[in-house]
Amino acid sequence: MADTDPLVIFTPSGKRGRVPVGTPVLEAARRLGVDLDSVCGGRGICSKCQVAPAYGSFPKHGVTVGHDALSPVNAVERRYDEKRGLKPGRRLGCQARILGDVVLDVPPESQLHRQVVRKAAEVRAVEMDPATRLLMVEVAEPDMHAPSGDLERLNTALAAQWDTPPAVASLPVLGRLQQTLRKGGWQVTVALHQGHLDATPRILDVWPGFFEGPLYGLAIDLGSTTIAAHLADLTTGEVRASAGVMNPQIRFGEDLMSRVSYAMMNPCGAVDMTTAVRSALGDLAKGIAEDAAIDPRLIVEATLVCNPVMHHLALGIDPVELGQAPFALATSDALALDAADLGLTTINPAARAYVLPLIAGHVGADAAAVALSEAPEKSDDLVLIVDVGTNAEMLLGDRTRVLACSSPTGPAFEGAQISSGQRAAPGAIERVRIDPATKEPRYRVIGCDLWSDEAGFAEAAGKVTGICGSGIIEAVAEMRMAGLVDGSGLIGSSEATGTARCIPEGRTHAFVLHDGRATSGPLIKVTQGDIRAIQLAKSALYAGARLLMDRMGVDHIDRVVLAGAFGAHISPLHAMVLGMIPDVPLDRVRSAGNAAGTGARIALCSRAARALVEANVRRIEKIETAVEPRFQEHFVAANALPHATDPFLELAKIAPLPKVDFNTGATDGARRRRRRS
Amino acid sequence: MADTDPLVIFTPSGKRGRVPVGTPVLEAARRLGVDLDSVCGGRGICSKCQVAPAYGSFPKHGVTVGHDALSPVNAVERRYDEKRGLKPGRRLGCQARILGDVVLDVPPESQLHRQVVRKAAEVRAVEMDPATRLLMVEVAEPDMHAPSGDLERLNTALAAQWDTPPAVASLPVLGRLQQTLRKGGWQVTVALHQGHLDATPRILDVWPGFFEGPLYGLAIDLGSTTIAAHLADLTTGEVRASAGVMNPQIRFGEDLMSRVSYAMMNPCGAVDMTTAVRSALGDLAKGIAEDAAIDPRLIVEATLVCNPVMHHLALGIDPVELGQAPFALATSDALALDAADLGLTTINPAARAYVLPLIAGHVGADAAAVALSEAPEKSDDLVLIVDVGTNAEMLLGDRTRVLACSSPTGPAFEGAQISSGQRAAPGAIERVRIDPATKEPRYRVIGCDLWSDEAGFAEAAGKVTGICGSGIIEAVAEMRMAGLVDGSGLIGSSEATGTARCIPEGRTHAFVLHDGRATSGPLIKVTQGDIRAIQLAKSALYAGARLLMDRMGVDHIDRVVLAGAFGAHISPLHAMVLGMIPDVPLDRVRSAGNAAGTGARIALCSRAARALVEANVRRIEKIETAVEPRFQEHFVAANALPHATDPFLELAKIAPLPKVDFNTGATDGARRRRRRS
Repeated sequence: MADTDPLVIFTPSGKRGRVPVGTPVLEAARRLGVDLDSVCGGRGICSKCQVAPAYGSFPKHGVTVGHDALSPVNAVERRYDEKRGLKPGRRLGCQARILGDVVLDVPPESQLHRQVVRKAAEVRAVEMDPATRLLMVEVAEPDMHAPSGDLERLNTALAAQWDTPPAVASLPVLGRLQQTLRKGGWQVTVALHQGHLDATPRILDVWPGFFEGPLYGLAIDLGSTTIAAHLADLTTGEVRASAGVMNPQIRFGEDLMSRVSYAMMNPCGAVDMTTAVRSALGDLAKGIAEDAAIDPRLIVEATLVCNPVMHHLALGIDPVELGQAPFALATSDALALDAADLGLTTINPAARAYVLPLIAGHVGADAAAVALSEAPEKSDDLVLIVDVGTNAEMLLGDRTRVLACSSPTGPAFEGAQISSGQRAAPGAIERVRIDPATKEPRYRVIGCDLWSDEAGFAEAAGKVTGICGSGIIEAVAEMRMAGLVDGSGLIGSSEATGTARCIPEGRTHAFVLHDGRATSGPLIKVTQGDIRAIQLAKSALYAGARLLMDRMGVDHIDRVVLAGAFGAHISPLHAMVLGMIPDVPLDRVRSAGNAAGTGARIALCSRAARALVEANVRRIEKIETAVEPRFQEHFVAANALPHATDPFLELAKIAPLPKVDFNTGATDGARRRRRRS
Repeated sequence: MADTDPLVIFTPSGKRGRVPVGTPVLEAARRLGVDLDSVCGGRGICSKCQVAPAYGSFPKHGVTVGHDALSPVNAVERRYDEKRGLKPGRRLGCQARILGDVVLDVPPESQLHRQVVRKAAEVRAVEMDPATRLLMVEVAEPDMHAPSGDLERLNTALAAQWDTPPAVASLPVLGRLQQTLRKGGWQVTVALHQGHLDATPRILDVWPGFFEGPLYGLAIDLGSTTIAAHLADLTTGEVRASAGVMNPQIRFGEDLMSRVSYAMMNPCGAVDMTTAVRSALGDLAKGIAEDAAIDPRLIVEATLVCNPVMHHLALGIDPVELGQAPFALATSDALALDAADLGLTTINPAARAYVLPLIAGHVGADAAAVALSEAPEKSDDLVLIVDVGTNAEMLLGDRTRVLACSSPTGPAFEGAQISSGQRAAPGAIERVRIDPATKEPRYRVIGCDLWSDEAGFAEAAGKVTGICGSGIIEAVAEMRMAGLVDGSGLIGSSEATGTARCIPEGRTHAFVLHDGRATSGPLIKVTQGDIRAIQLAKSALYAGARLLMDRMGVDHIDRVVLAGAFGAHISPLHAMVLGMIPDVPLDRVRSAGNAAGTGARIALCSRAARALVEANVRRIEKIETAVEPRFQEHFVAANALPHATDPFLELAKIAPLPKVDFNTGATDGARRRRRRS
């Protein structure tokens, strides 16, 4: 470009350069590599290429912009403004031509790769880079003297107007192509899918003329118990609807191992479970489209995260190998599939699905998605990320390396195998406090904001039915803090504890949390068996974390992130009292919510994120707890509340635990310790 | 390699080089780029790598081969010989090691890219290069300390042992993978598909241990009337079975245009025709596997050739655009599809289909397949290739250029629109001779080798029912040669011709070929209307050929190839008498049989051939007869028998035609011509 050509400066990118007088802004943006969106390819239809010119003197940029820097507003812009409204000061980039030096701001909504801030509290953001885009093209009409197919001419147009390689189309799309081209007067908008795993782009759908969209994608977190999905706008990344259903495989077995057993014991077991989950996925997709009141045909992509057993069952693979060492996966890499192959037959028939990669036989795509969401590989300090469920999947790492393992916590944290345990549902005790002086408990139940000792609780709460996972954790921790349970996990007698709520039960004791028998309700107790179940679960969790720390060569970590729906409800203090997680300052424990679901959503919006999670998974060092000799040792030491040998100094600063011992056949040492307390 | 290393010479390729002492023959072949087959990858299992060492002095190669040039026969070779038999003098290339200078012959059956001679009479041959191959691999066992999927380890093994890029597997194949690997003790044989249009190879199937195959492919010629298929061995190219069925779309319309009309007039017309043809394809594939007594799962590929209307209907595309100018195709390029998408659901579920490209809206993949089979682009002389059917598709060309067009001959050549016309079936007259002196006809019917004037004909032939396409052509041509029909196509009266077989019919005449009325059979005549129908058809054919010659800038051609099932039955002399084809010496007219089917078979066996047909189709110059102004002129001039203006000098040499004129309102000129005769 000549030095006398107009200088164009785009903000916020700061990209600048000279272009010949008369160059359209959109064309200038393309030449300078500025991220300016367009669907219609510069035909003044889509309005995606809006820019805001700034006038006046800009010493920073070294230019003065006169009001004649752009061509006057033309008929196309006036018509667009009249019909659909153009914000004041905005111009259409494909219509406005550059006549002099100019500063042009690209507003966020005109950026194709706009950043989507995930959470207000976080600095990291996701840059929109979806695999499927809407592109409008003008296709050459057929010429019988140079015969070629409509698809071939569409591909020629895409190459010329959007610089894309030749795309393929499924037979149903091909079957609609001729009619659509003619209806649109040889202008059509295509949904072009360019997956990073696919060598060849695919035309997923085609509309006559200009089609504004938006297109949608489903981010699916397929859990053993629940299947959750977010419907996201593939242009903005915005979540338009969310939905969750129970995993219908529950009827074949509550937890993962019982489902693997079901597959082993029943000839069609795996097939039946595959059919059930695929059907649920189809229903879920249908429901979420109805909730959002959108045409399900506009859902053109899905991402799927799940643990290895769910992964194999969704793909139609018998999970039997996952039930025994060496826990061999049928496939571990990320997969690009037709969404219909996963049962997503209720959305666009050509929709594609991306299944995140698995980390190991026990560490699934859900953990990979957590890693994508929480990015331990970018952490300056050493972070332990725990996704608590039937298995606890853990990531420990920082910028230098990331380790992963899975620990078999069992279902106690979900309220199963607990005498009064139940799922997290209305009526379940979810919060517990015990007065250390009076030993009187108070609690809150799901569905009611009042504590049990507040006025109106009985009416507002309705029937108290049981205790859920977070409730049992708080109950046991509060019992430990109130001196009702000793360091070994034993519940004291009413004599030893001074409260009639400690009642004998065989050779052990139980603590009565709620007695609803007067109103035909249940007697909700925490039994010695409940405490043992929680101890087993938390020991497995802690032992896994310790194994990772051993491998990392560290004795302490900097912070803990609790992921998963359950993690969102665990009180960090109570988890620490139980010794579920390594000792860190309480303000360094954070809940990440459904980080796996967030990871699925990030992968939905960004091909770069898909490539990143695949690279991360390859780099993550995997530790198989089942065969690590030190696991058992860590497990035994972690049985105590909070721990037999680890000091938990941070915990001691905020919650010194009473030194009690209810072992009636106590050793001399134990007796001495009790005496000193 | 050092000069002292043994020198290895492979025949017949002549490839030579030095390899270190002890190198296995298979390894030496790979290093020197010699085409030596192997499925088991050198494990002494498959025996595909057999070589025949030659001993003694070879002055031509400059070596003397001692009996110690190869390592002695080892235990693996002995076991193979005992179990399955090794031909005398043969060695297994993976077992025999090179110890000294040696000459090794690679027998044809050990060549992966062996040449398949298509026809005894032809020099051209097809080199086997199928898209799908059997490859045996040894897969690493899973390691829980370095977890990865079985598929990923299989791909690692394929890359290491066969140098292939990572392959994908369909979900059903993935679902069988784990069990198969374990059953085979971590050795499996995979059917690896590496289509030239696919960026990513596909694992179509997997067998435990060593699986010898062979794999099969289907070459399908989907015609408007019949669907023909050949089942070919994908290793040898050999045809193992052939089958044909009627195209069930016939119930929606006899010819192409009536099917297009059916699609236009009926809401689900196109869908119904698609369903019908796909179902027939599935049945045909099932039947052919049964005929060949092979497991249909071993059929892993199919190629499809068809005209544009059949192509669109098979793909599920409404052919309405093909019924009107500009005859726009939905897609013209070659397609790689799942065979199941075409209704081939009765073969391997992961089987792939390759659909040959279309040349133009009227010139289909069948013509492209004919071009592949007959290779006009390699012809030294100018060849006209005619595929006669409801439309006549024509190719004219030589090494310099190739032109193509389609001409609307209508169904007369197939016996339709002929008063006594019928399909080629038992009872149909297919050959006719008329004595020029007595004007008495004799004929042969399909299903009987005797002529009608031979003893025993009546018993052997059974009922004579009508006249088929080749029969009507011979009948009209013989009538012209016997002076019963004049150059304008008029049938003479009994007075003018001197035979009572010329009977009046309204204001015209008919010629009685067979009178079966005494035995309740039909009266089979050639009417004036029949002659007009043949004239219309042959004029269209000839006019198309002339258009191509005009475009080529030539007045005569060197040779004619008649392709198609009908072409196989046309008598070249009679075709020439009618002026169906341009005048060439009779020995330069050849029938190519079902050249489209042959092209489909070549494409089945060779990826290079697929690439070639795609390149050829792009290079072929297409002429749309419907809009060429000179077509009408050529058509009118071609109405006469053989032609009004073209001299047909070659024909005159062998069959001078009587100069008769039966126009009773004849002009002076016509009268003069008659007088002179």
